[in-house]
Amino acid sequence: MRTSEFTDFRRELDFKRGVYTRQFIWHMQNRKSIQLTFERLISMQVSNLGCQRIVLKPLNFAGTAQVITGLDFATIHEDQDTRYWEGVKQGSQHGITAMLGRTANTGNRLFSSYRLDLPMGAKSGTLSEENFIGDEIVLNLKKGEETVVDKLVINYADKDQEQSDDEVWSKGMKLAKQYAEVDYKAAAEQQEQYWAKVWEHSDIVIEGDPENQQGIRFCIFQLYQTYHGDNPGFNIGAKGLTGEAYRGLAFWDTESYCLPFYIFNNPKAARSLLEFRYKTLPQALERAKELDCAGAFYPIATIDGTESCDLWQHSNLQLHVGTAVAYGIRHYVNITGDKAFLYEKGLEMLIQISRFYATRGQWGQKTGKYGYFGVMGPDEFQLMVNNNCYINLMAKKMFDYTLETIAEMEQAQLSAFVALADRLELTVQEQMEWKNKADNMKIPYDEETGIYEEHDGFFDMPHLDIHSIPVTEFPLYSHWSYDRLYRYDMIKQPDVLMFMFLYSGEFSREAKRANYDYYETRCIHESSLSPSIHSILAAEIDRPAEAYKFFEFATRLDLDNYNRNTREGLHTTSIAAAWMNIVYGFGECARMEISWSLIRRFQSAGANIPSQSLIRELSSRSR
Amino acid sequence: MRTSEFTDFRRELDFKRGVYTRQFIWHMQNRKSIQLTFERLISMQVSNLGCQRIVLKPLNFAGTAQVITGLDFATIHEDQDTRYWEGVKQGSQHGITAMLGRTANTGNRLFSSYRLDLPMGAKSGTLSEENFIGDEIVLNLKKGEETVVDKLVINYADKDQEQSDDEVWSKGMKLAKQYAEVDYKAAAEQQEQYWAKVWEHSDIVIEGDPENQQGIRFCIFQLYQTYHGDNPGFNIGAKGLTGEAYRGLAFWDTESYCLPFYIFNNPKAARSLLEFRYKTLPQALERAKELDCAGAFYPIATIDGTESCDLWQHSNLQLHVGTAVAYGIRHYVNITGDKAFLYEKGLEMLIQISRFYATRGQWGQKTGKYGYFGVMGPDEFQLMVNNNCYINLMAKKMFDYTLETIAEMEQAQLSAFVALADRLELTVQEQMEWKNKADNMKIPYDEETGIYEEHDGFFDMPHLDIHSIPVTEFPLYSHWSYDRLYRYDMIKQPDVLMFMFLYSGEFSREAKRANYDYYETRCIHESSLSPSIHSILAAEIDRPAEAYKFFEFATRLDLDNYNRNTREGLHTTSIAAAWMNIVYGFGECARMEISWSLIRRFQSAGANIPSQSLIRELSSRSR
Repeated sequence: MRTSEFTDFRRELDFKRGVYTRQFIWHMQNRKSIQLTFERLISMQVSNLGCQRIVLKPLNFAGTAQVITGLDFATIHEDQDTRYWEGVKQGSQHGITAMLGRTANTGNRLFSSYRLDLPMGAKSGTLSEENFIGDEIVLNLKKGEETVVDKLVINYADKDQEQSDDEVWSKGMKLAKQYAEVDYKAAAEQQEQYWAKVWEHSDIVIEGDPENQQGIRFCIFQLYQTYHGDNPGFNIGAKGLTGEAYRGLAFWDTESYCLPFYIFNNPKAARSLLEFRYKTLPQALERAKELDCAGAFYPIATIDGTESCDLWQHSNLQLHVGTAVAYGIRHYVNITGDKAFLYEKGLEMLIQISRFYATRGQWGQKTGKYGYFGVMGPDEFQLMVNNNCYINLMAKKMFDYTLETIAEMEQAQLSAFVALADRLELTVQEQMEWKNKADNMKIPYDEETGIYEEHDGFFDMPHLDIHSIPVTEFPLYSHWSYDRLYRYDMIKQPDVLMFMFLYSGEFSREAKRANYDYYETRCIHESSLSPSIHSILAAEIDRPAEAYKFFEFATRLDLDNYNRNTREGLHTTSIAAAWMNIVYGFGECARMEISWSLIRRFQSAGANIPSQSLIRELSSRSR
Repeated sequence: MRTSEFTDFRRELDFKRGVYTRQFIWHMQNRKSIQLTFERLISMQVSNLGCQRIVLKPLNFAGTAQVITGLDFATIHEDQDTRYWEGVKQGSQHGITAMLGRTANTGNRLFSSYRLDLPMGAKSGTLSEENFIGDEIVLNLKKGEETVVDKLVINYADKDQEQSDDEVWSKGMKLAKQYAEVDYKAAAEQQEQYWAKVWEHSDIVIEGDPENQQGIRFCIFQLYQTYHGDNPGFNIGAKGLTGEAYRGLAFWDTESYCLPFYIFNNPKAARSLLEFRYKTLPQALERAKELDCAGAFYPIATIDGTESCDLWQHSNLQLHVGTAVAYGIRHYVNITGDKAFLYEKGLEMLIQISRFYATRGQWGQKTGKYGYFGVMGPDEFQLMVNNNCYINLMAKKMFDYTLETIAEMEQAQLSAFVALADRLELTVQEQMEWKNKADNMKIPYDEETGIYEEHDGFFDMPHLDIHSIPVTEFPLYSHWSYDRLYRYDMIKQPDVLMFMFLYSGEFSREAKRANYDYYETRCIHESSLSPSIHSILAAEIDRPAEAYKFFEFATRLDLDNYNRNTREGLHTTSIAAAWMNIVYGFGECARMEISWSLIRRFQSAGANIPSQSLIRELSSRSR
């Protein structure tokens, strides 16, 4: 028996128009062939709006076709093999078909609705099941002619759980009616206008390298689409909105890798990311208590501000989210000059973060220095160590910035500051304590070589020539005994080099070179976030070939599916790292030339970015 | 309504007769009162035999009584709230009622049977349920007179799983028939004779301290009853056979705390304990492979030789079982002179243990010394450290002893040695490697103070005055954040002091004093095994008052239920530590006097203990 066949399959993502197209020809068992085209776009200007166009073109027949389309809340989570949605309400009204669903564990709600634009003569009837509502459409197709079905979707999400189901439903319906006149053509035109503006402002032009040119544009496109900041207090999951791996959880990647892109391209989105941390400050305060500490302890993996990592060695020992948040605040404020945010919300976070780091740390009995014992730094191959250099240095910087900001706000807005200090019961004594701890922070460092020691005793860790590991043993997590990973001078990703990247302006080229040479040879890059940082530093220390080697896979990781896991979702945070790689890395590599052209580009990008501070930032990075 | 009442409740454990008695008066709702007495004994000479006597004495009435007794395989595990037994077969034959049960997870089988000795005129009929078989007995009671029911039980366990159910059943039945003539009286007499001999050989007399006198006799009684070595290759669970806590699992306690008692009192039992490790060598070889190592890695918690601890930080990082086994072999052979065991089985274990320690260890990059990275020593409050002094020193000693034994056997039994070396593919090269690793083992030590450093960096661990911890926070495991336990100079139990105890003869009194003063003040004794070791060392460094303070709770921990958890089972391994506390501790404290009287006692105890080596052992301990 002859079977169905599909040919001429094609997928296309049009960065200029912001439209995704999938097309193929379906050769049916009965020898009829039809070309099907699906176009989709998520409106960048009305974030509630999504559009789909289905084009049917019978190649060798005429006749009727039945199309079923609708809203499906019965989808199964890929990893977990479980349905996490339950339908709460569904119905049709004024040509709008809608459903309200609720997530099983978190109780978040999504109102989703659609309206159909059907060709003349088409018939449709409602289909309703437990977790599905849709339309069954009957179309009359003519041979060789295109028949078009448009579906206009309005989504409205409620994560605050303060409204009743009916309230969410009626707000959603109101929105759906508000946009009831928008048709596919108008939405696509608006979309094209939006992206034209984006490319005008945020494009990066790479000459003579069409692969990476396409790659970096893919990255910029995805970063814009992943997060626009329309809903303050949302975060970016490791896979953005593209896949279910990591269950939507956000990590320190947000502040450490993603934030710079938004600071320079969409400051509103950057602020919105920081608002997530402010909004979840209560959860961080609770979490610190669980660890017998004061202040705020931000979770290593989270979707709603609570800790979602169930491995104590990561959730209890990895302290680097709090300092990343503090760094993010500082970075955002330095570039945008948004002191209102700093005084209204930023400083409150800084004070609570300081309180955590002032209670979690301890004084070394022999050295008399302050530091953090029993921790894991960004390098997850050193599981439980004392005085991780990254954590100590970042905490020191965080204390300093908190104290500076206190002094600054006291000058700038005394009464607001007093109100804040009163509310938080901030004492002079604790500020003195922070200063003392910052001043006496232990920074493990070898004077002779100029190399920072990743943690106490790292230099004595048994050496492993990482090139001697057979390729069949990668990834090591799956092939090595769990504890074996943790007893070499092998590192998973930058740790000392990470703070040299973040505080780039404070380290000489010689210091970077010494530490790069030591740590890069010990790093196996078992994180997609690792190569970009190395590439940037290689550029800074004048090793363009090496910088290019680490850059090679950055922009096209998912386009070319290097890790063979793109089906799990994009490496969204690593896409942001690819952007940094070009801007922070090759900007320097080309001896300021690219930097200046980038600055010109950035200047035109964000009206509210003061170009002086931007120039200062880029200059300080590339000394 | 009047309710039933019980009065005159009494429990008695008769050390001399080896009989346990429970007695009470039951005042029934109908105003009838009856005195009930239950006597039980587990035969020490026929380990399959158990006897129960039930004595009924109506105080104010005459009439019939119904007694149900039988074999119950429907019991529920206290901790797990699950039934782990399933009945396989049951039946009655020639007055013997029997049942074969199988454990749910391990598939071990127990044949259990009983025979009743009933008074004249009693009637009985079989009761049978799914996991129970028994008798319903009707007795005619006379006012003020005792009616006696005896139940004679024969158990037969099969843990090898090589026999069919029918084979286990018929072996059990054969045994039951073999002992069918034994009545309660004869069993009790035999029992009394056995214990008389025990007390003649193993009694410890404490003058002027009746509490501890009773205490130490309770300990000796329990140790004899817990393990007799009739089944070579069985081990001692943390609770012996007295409770379900710790699920019957055996730890390093066996070799480190229990073995000395058996070496001196019942060398056959001591050998049998070591046979457990030989029998489970295949599992230890497998386990080492799981850790990417060669040789044998003995489990931290086990019932059948496989690892039963499901916390990686304990099962992967705690390396001290293997060296404890090696120490146990050495100790046993030194005292008993049992070279046959050493050459037939001991050396094979030593070689495989050496192979593990030669592959698990690594060379420090800075110090050039050999040691163990990413480990947890006996002190479980230092979770993942490098160069734990105890582990390093015990490994060094273990390598040395293995090499000595190889040299010795090569001399003594060349052809047997060659056969062994061939079978194990032992090379000269690996022996040289062991020697090199032993010679270059890192032993963290401060020359100036004479204090061994528990592990690299311990002296810089933040100090905590353990007396400042509020009593309400104990046990810390339940009150502190998990990671907080691991970042102080606070220790849970002896670690450096443990090797000073085990290799007592090699450390001067001054060295012991310095290390005792440093570590004892940092130890919270959150293990019942901790105080005894401290007591012994306090005795050795001439601090009798302190020695007595730590000893105080040792012998009567369960008799007086200090920890309020005796219902979970006896602290069996800590009972063995109490015995060591007296023999090793106060023997020295009394300046050899007690030691010599102990030696005289030991000499009469074990015919196969060469008194010379025993004297050498005790002398070397008490220098």
